[in-house]
Amino acid sequence: MKTEILSMLRAADGYVSGQQICDRFHVSRTAVWKVIEQLKEEGYEIEAVRRRGYHLTGSPDVMSKAEIESRIETKWAGRNVFYYEETDSTNTRAKALGEEGAPHGTLAAADAQSAGKGRRGRGWESAPGKDIYMSILLKPQISPVQAPMLTLVMALSAVEAVKEETGLDAGIKWPNDLVINKKKICGILTEMSLEEEQISYVVIGVGINVNHDEFPEELAGRATSLKLESGKEWTRAKLVAQVMEKFEKNYEIFLKDGSLAGLKERYNGLLLNKEREVRVLDPKGEYTAFALGINEKGELLVEREDGRREAVFSGEVSVRGIYGYV
Amino acid sequence: MKTEILSMLRAADGYVSGQQICDRFHVSRTAVWKVIEQLKEEGYEIEAVRRRGYHLTGSPDVMSKAEIESRIETKWAGRNVFYYEETDSTNTRAKALGEEGAPHGTLAAADAQSAGKGRRGRGWESAPGKDIYMSILLKPQISPVQAPMLTLVMALSAVEAVKEETGLDAGIKWPNDLVINKKKICGILTEMSLEEEQISYVVIGVGINVNHDEFPEELAGRATSLKLESGKEWTRAKLVAQVMEKFEKNYEIFLKDGSLAGLKERYNGLLLNKEREVRVLDPKGEYTAFALGINEKGELLVEREDGRREAVFSGEVSVRGIYGYV
Repeated sequence: MKTEILSMLRAADGYVSGQQICDRFHVSRTAVWKVIEQLKEEGYEIEAVRRRGYHLTGSPDVMSKAEIESRIETKWAGRNVFYYEETDSTNTRAKALGEEGAPHGTLAAADAQSAGKGRRGRGWESAPGKDIYMSILLKPQISPVQAPMLTLVMALSAVEAVKEETGLDAGIKWPNDLVINKKKICGILTEMSLEEEQISYVVIGVGINVNHDEFPEELAGRATSLKLESGKEWTRAKLVAQVMEKFEKNYEIFLKDGSLAGLKERYNGLLLNKEREVRVLDPKGEYTAFALGINEKGELLVEREDGRREAVFSGEVSVRGIYGYV
Repeated sequence: MKTEILSMLRAADGYVSGQQICDRFHVSRTAVWKVIEQLKEEGYEIEAVRRRGYHLTGSPDVMSKAEIESRIETKWAGRNVFYYEETDSTNTRAKALGEEGAPHGTLAAADAQSAGKGRRGRGWESAPGKDIYMSILLKPQISPVQAPMLTLVMALSAVEAVKEETGLDAGIKWPNDLVINKKKICGILTEMSLEEEQISYVVIGVGINVNHDEFPEELAGRATSLKLESGKEWTRAKLVAQVMEKFEKNYEIFLKDGSLAGLKERYNGLLLNKEREVRVLDPKGEYTAFALGINEKGELLVEREDGRREAVFSGEVSVRGIYGYV
């Protein structure tokens, strides 16, 4: 009921009377009062005025199951929230939920991670209470070879959410890093479980540096946060809901033909590597090329110096800008 | 220490003195006596004679961590045993162990399963205390597209183990069912977890009907057990160890070039579909063909009635004998 009362207070333009809440949820005044007290304890600023009722005057950056749920307005993406004050990694939690049969769209989110995962077995720097760590569980009826494209669907969704929420000039470094001012603000890690040749579930983890104030020296040149770039703090739960909303829409476009055909124009519009020189780190031999954009499979099309065109697959190679990270 | 004492008793031709055991493991006579009492409680028949020592006279079909471990003589396959009196499914256990970082070759085995898994989402009939339910965790450095071949490596290993142990005329129904007298005695289910395009781990589950006395009517025509076929009971732990031994050898042959090239001759020698007519249940259209045997990718080569040859991939189609199950 906490989620519902929070949504009601947030939706109201001004005061909501205790009686209105009681009538809506068929609970006693005491029950309402208890929930209001809990919300205050979590950090919400709520004015209580006799004969007028309750007024939500301030919503600091609280992360909780109720806070996230009260902001999510999708059909399925993030409708079922598991929230952890601290956990090993939200990808690990979402995989465990997948094993237990949790539904498509289940979201695992945490305030802190003790064993955050980055790509290629690297770790992911976690600052408790500052950033977004979340993983969505999906049960798509697609072939395993199509699944890596979901990573790009999420990259597009996350960058669209960040831009809409903050107005910051964020873009994508192929295939799935989010970048502002040539520094990384978000990483995405996709994991998948197969039974024979069929997908049991896919987990897409998203880490966004939101209110991170500083980074260790070795990362400072390559990583940044929304706060560092904008000079202000952001409400994480709002951004989580925004990412879920964008993802749900983009995922449904992807599912129509199981390709990025319907998304690649928007993706390429946000792709920072596009029309730039890149160094292709192909294990068979590195080379410099001119990046043209992704195709409908999510491969990066590049033109080599001798004019040959190649479609670069993220499973085999990575790309690096000629001058720095992008 | 239970495992080691059990191995020592089994290896001895006759009596082992309490003193010998004490000296070997640097423990007291009381400690040895306690272990012997535990073993008797588990069902082992052990004679204790003053001045001569202990003699293992009978080893009924006990399944336990110590029993399995005392029989396994491999380098890595099944060296790390997790045993459950009852669990949901050993594949689910092995996947959980994989998530927790258990080593390559870890074996999850159970006396009973409450949620046994068959292929394509079907269940697996479990008779407590009668059959083998086991799953091995693997961390192969191969591409995900090669992983389905591991199912065939296990099918070959399991059939070789059953034949060696029981002398029964077992064979393979492509790709991975074990069959005696046209009835199924063993099923194999492979699951896999990927991080981006890399394998995190593979789990291969093996269910063998060992001492099963009867099957429900709807299965009786299609399923059998080693006991029903031979008229005698078999020691499950011995068979588990035998499967692990065969699998370790065959897996290492597979890893040499990541294909079934080095195994396909033996596999085809045990393939019951070979040189028989089969019905290929291709979703694009069923057809009848003559099965020739597998290729090095594990695909079934068939010759159609018009002479065209096809390589049939188990992810897409299944095959059925023209006259019955095989």
